[in-house]
Amino acid sequence: MPPTRAVTVALDGYGAEQGFDVLAEGARLAAADPQIGIRVFGPRRALGLDGVDGIEVIDTTEWITNDEDPVQAVRAKKGASVVQAAADVAAERSAALVSPGSTGATMAAATFGLRRLQGVQRPALAVQLPAPRKTVLFLDVGANVNVRAQHLVQFGFLGAAFSAAVLGVAKPRVGLLTVGEESGKGREEVVEANRLLSEAPGIEFAGNVEGGDIPAATVDVVVTDGFTGNVTLKVMEGSARAIAGAIRAAARSNPLAAAGGLLLKPALGGLRRDFHPDTTGGAILLGLRGIAVVGHGSAGAEGIANAVRLAARCAEVDAVGRTAALLREGGASRSALAGAS
Amino acid sequence: MPPTRAVTVALDGYGAEQGFDVLAEGARLAAADPQIGIRVFGPRRALGLDGVDGIEVIDTTEWITNDEDPVQAVRAKKGASVVQAAADVAAERSAALVSPGSTGATMAAATFGLRRLQGVQRPALAVQLPAPRKTVLFLDVGANVNVRAQHLVQFGFLGAAFSAAVLGVAKPRVGLLTVGEESGKGREEVVEANRLLSEAPGIEFAGNVEGGDIPAATVDVVVTDGFTGNVTLKVMEGSARAIAGAIRAAARSNPLAAAGGLLLKPALGGLRRDFHPDTTGGAILLGLRGIAVVGHGSAGAEGIANAVRLAARCAEVDAVGRTAALLREGGASRSALAGAS
Repeated sequence: MPPTRAVTVALDGYGAEQGFDVLAEGARLAAADPQIGIRVFGPRRALGLDGVDGIEVIDTTEWITNDEDPVQAVRAKKGASVVQAAADVAAERSAALVSPGSTGATMAAATFGLRRLQGVQRPALAVQLPAPRKTVLFLDVGANVNVRAQHLVQFGFLGAAFSAAVLGVAKPRVGLLTVGEESGKGREEVVEANRLLSEAPGIEFAGNVEGGDIPAATVDVVVTDGFTGNVTLKVMEGSARAIAGAIRAAARSNPLAAAGGLLLKPALGGLRRDFHPDTTGGAILLGLRGIAVVGHGSAGAEGIANAVRLAARCAEVDAVGRTAALLREGGASRSALAGAS
Repeated sequence: MPPTRAVTVALDGYGAEQGFDVLAEGARLAAADPQIGIRVFGPRRALGLDGVDGIEVIDTTEWITNDEDPVQAVRAKKGASVVQAAADVAAERSAALVSPGSTGATMAAATFGLRRLQGVQRPALAVQLPAPRKTVLFLDVGANVNVRAQHLVQFGFLGAAFSAAVLGVAKPRVGLLTVGEESGKGREEVVEANRLLSEAPGIEFAGNVEGGDIPAATVDVVVTDGFTGNVTLKVMEGSARAIAGAIRAAARSNPLAAAGGLLLKPALGGLRRDFHPDTTGGAILLGLRGIAVVGHGSAGAEGIANAVRLAARCAEVDAVGRTAALLREGGASRSALAGAS
């Protein structure tokens, strides 16, 4: 790895559904930034990345498939690409981990390989949701199917820290997702989390938010459990796809509409880019002593590149160190976090 | 009430956010159908419906606001409009209840006033979700924030029965909403519900579905708990609003785009109608010995009329009787339902 590159990212070379060529092209795009170096753990010959400036391939022939139990596979396969990439970050040869592959395997490899920040019980998976005016950070989208109140509180602090450190939001406002604005609305753990967050120092808690507040972007960070978050994320992605498909169908329905579609298309470009899954780079696992980004399995080269860029940016701004500091300063480790152990 | 009207609907005259004029106009629109009679429980003078063919006003001056605890308010206020309307259905003067007002108060009034079908532990709130190709029946969207596996199974039977009886789907396919297709994915109660539904006779269980399957309409009925369902519904409504707003903004961004928007608009009309909350008429409370439809509080006159028409249609096809029969025939009361008591 050339020492001239400011940040080195460990990239899992397996798991891109569109194949090695697309993954390699994504790595090339990201490494075109002279600040970003990449160590790719994958099949040297298939990747064809030898000699590319800023890229080093660590020839790897073992990987974890979507069909395997993630935890068992990570424990059993020390040579698997995602496990090696996580070990690379733990050994500080790379500053962040990126995998386009199985979310479960990446979470397991990162959790075992990178360890949790002090006071954090449950790492959470966060995504930047496209909204017309601004990005909303949404977590947990799948790491924790069951949560207790204190976990939701931790997600609030983790999300606020990431929003401030990486997304540059000065005082991120955190909302708690539930079925009504009033503080008593929702499941028991949500009602309790509302109480804890209302009393917690160091966080701008905006109270309960409802489903409609996510696309309306009324807050900067939305906190929920990994079941609701995963369902919600996939509903939003699917709704955008369905509506885009319906608009395309409308534009094909008659010649006048087709002409209208052509005229409107350039102005819709920004919207299409905003809602494309490749745009935000992927989900970020928060709460560990290292950055891990899980790309969309179906990502194209630009999506892979954006995942690498997101991981590099997290490392550049020391997202982990600043998250740890905010957790301490915010009193999260004293009250809400410590109270949860 | 003229005896010539085939179906009589009890309409809560309070709770329409757009006021009495809009509610009255909605009642007029619905009563233009010579099959539908309406008994309106509301303020006679403000409604101005006296003498309208097919409409009878029962002068009512008490109502339940959104700020009150629904259960307490329904118990305390026997004269409240929604309580009277539910009592009208229980006394068989009306065949179905419609309220555009508080969902909580309507559910409470219906549950106390109409009682549950035999074997049903938890009534569920269902909505018809607009999808480009077909309607998906989605429940529970807010009646039960916490559920057990058996409740999810019941929701499956209630949804399938409604889909067959009212929506005319021959063999409705029922999906269970969770975080992965595999049967072991999701919370404990979801995994158990998957097992029970897989073994249940009399239902076309399609297995687990994910968030993206709702807008993609891969099944006819999607079952979930009232927390996830409420959040999901509001996210979908909000996403449609946000995308529509972004398209309007794009069409205003320059003259060519504006021309394109005008040309495309007629073809998009169907899509706009599909996604308008007024179109489907509202949420239906399933599992009771009577029909209750909760309209959108923000519904316009057409939305109110559609809620009344939906309730009338449910009564015409004897949705309650057919649901009870399907629950019995399907063996739900023998196995899944009885096992849950």
